[in-house]
Parts: sequence; C-alpha cells; structure tokens
Amino acid sequence: MFHEAWKITIITERTLEQKVSRLLMDMGCKGFTLFDVGGRGLHHFHAPVERGIAPEEFTEIQFEAILQNRERAESIARKIVQEFFDYYAGIVFLERVEVVRAERF
Amino acid sequence: MFHEAWKITIITERTLEQKVSRLLMDMGCKGFTLFDVGGRGLHHFHAPVERGIAPEEFTEIQFEAILQNRERAESIARKIVQEFFDYYAGIVFLERVEVVRAERF
Amino acid sequence: MFHEAWKITIITERTLEQKVSRLLMDMGCKGFTLFDVGGRGLHHFHAPVERGIAPEEFTEIQFEAILQNRERAESIARKIVQEFFDYYAGIVFLERVEVVRAERF
Repeated sequence: MFHEAWKITIITERTLEQKVSRLLMDMGCKGFTLFDVGGRGLHHFHAPVERGIAPEEFTEIQFEAILQNRERAESIARKIVQEFFDYYAGIVFLERVEVVRAERF
Repeated sequence: MFHEAWKITIITERTLEQKVSRLLMDMGCKGFTLFDVGGRGLHHFHAPVERGIAPEEFTEIQFEAILQNRERAESIARKIVQEFFDYYAGIVFLERVEVVRAERF
Repeated sequence: MFHEAWKITIITERTLEQKVSRLLMDMGCKGFTLFDVGGRGLHHFHAPVERGIAPEEFTEIQFEAILQNRERAESIARKIVQEFFDYYAGIVFLERVEVVRAERF
C-alpha cells in the first residue's frame, strides 16, 4: 500500500511565489503545499539573530511537492536553482517519502 | 542515542482538525504538531495557480506525528485514507526519522 | 549534483526562540528556517484535543536546519536536549535529505 516517492522542498523569497508555483505545475507536479516561514543565515535574508522574528517578518515561503518519479524531482530541483538562485535567496532539497495512492503523485 | 522512528504527515482541510486530532490520539500517537498551510493542485482545493495565495487563504492544515512503531504509523495512514479521503481533499505520507528519547514516541 | 545532508528539526516553546537560534548559529549552522506551529500531547502544552487550535494558539515554534556533517547535527541535537528539555517541552529529530550546492550547508 506504501509506495516510494520523492518530496522536493523549496524555501525562497515570497516574491517568487507565483513564479515557483507555475514552474512546479508546468514541470509535472500534481500539487504542492505552501508554508509561511521565517529564517536566518546564509539562505535567508540577513536579519540579525540577536532579536526574535515577529510573525509579520515571516517573509519567506516554503513549497513542498511530492513526485513519484525521482528524475522529475531532480529536474525540478535543478531548474529552480538555475532560474532563481543566482539572484534570489533560497535552498532546495529532496527527501524520500512513502505515499498511499501513488497514482496521485 | 538516536533511534529510528516514523513520521506521518497528513495534509487536509481545516474542517477536519478535530476529527483527525482525535483519531491520532485514539490510535496511539503521544503527540502531534499542527501547521497552517495553503496549497494548489490535485490534493488541494482547486484555486488557480495564476494568482498568489494570501495568508487568509491558508485553509488547510498539516499534521505531523512521530511514532516509534512502523506498523502503528501504517495503520494510522490507512485509517485516515479510509475515513476521510473519499470525501475530503488530502494526502498522507510516511518518512523515516531518528529521534532522541525514543520512549516519548 | 545531489549531496547527502542531515536536517535537524526542533519543536519547542516560542519563548526559547532566541536561545535556540543562537545555539544553532554558535554550533555551526549556516542558516535555519522557522515555522509557527501548534500541537497537542506529550511534547506540547497539554491543551485538550476536544477543541480546535485557533491560529493565535500557535504558541510553539519549529526550527529546521540542514547540515552537511552528520556529527555536527548529532552534537546539536544532544546539546538542545541537555540545555532545554529538562525544563521546557520539546522534541528534536534528524532526517536524511539531499541538497544541491553542498557548500552552503
């Protein structure tokens, strides 16, 4: 009942929301989930760690999408880096997951 | 010090919050974490990708729970699908994690 | 192009935000991501499951950081438990991920 699949996570600036959404759907994602996030450090805006992050400073966005096909997940990751990460802060990574109802991914 | 465990993630409509919460606790989860999320595509409400998702449109909810016991995680995943996903949008998946203090999961 | 790395996740009380942030950066994390979360059960405040969690009750915080070095991720996990989890609610766990541009982690 459980099938191997690949979750791709993209964390980047909120201004890219529509561009990344469209890229995901264009490259064969059947869906994705969106989180409001904040952050610090190399991959984020360089706000000082000395003060807390107020909720209104959650200026970044995290996408998660699951794909049955490993090659497709890799292609999306590469494309995201090429298209956006020379100019915008962001990271992308893959994780192995197990899904129910594989035909949906 | 690190022990294998299984994280179950459930993404579904906010209206199911209490039902899913109760199912998780009834089936032996010792705790869970809750995220406000938005989304697009097959597993989500079919809002168009052409416009952004405003924070007030984060109408879905993501549960994460960790279980030491793989069979229990699988039972919960199956039960969630059977109980809810004929009628509600949602996905469920498992991931392998490593926890500290295994007796808490 | 994809390199193994380790994601550490810490879920704890919001009051620890600055302390955990500083510990992460001091112990060699190059960045981290922050989520507002709610929760129930052993690792969380003991709010009853019988009622829903309003967004203003998202009183906990989840940190995620990725490290190339497994030993460093383990050291951070141990340190978090020692420093905080005798007195505060919280959990910590590790997951294997695959990153692009490994030098950033």
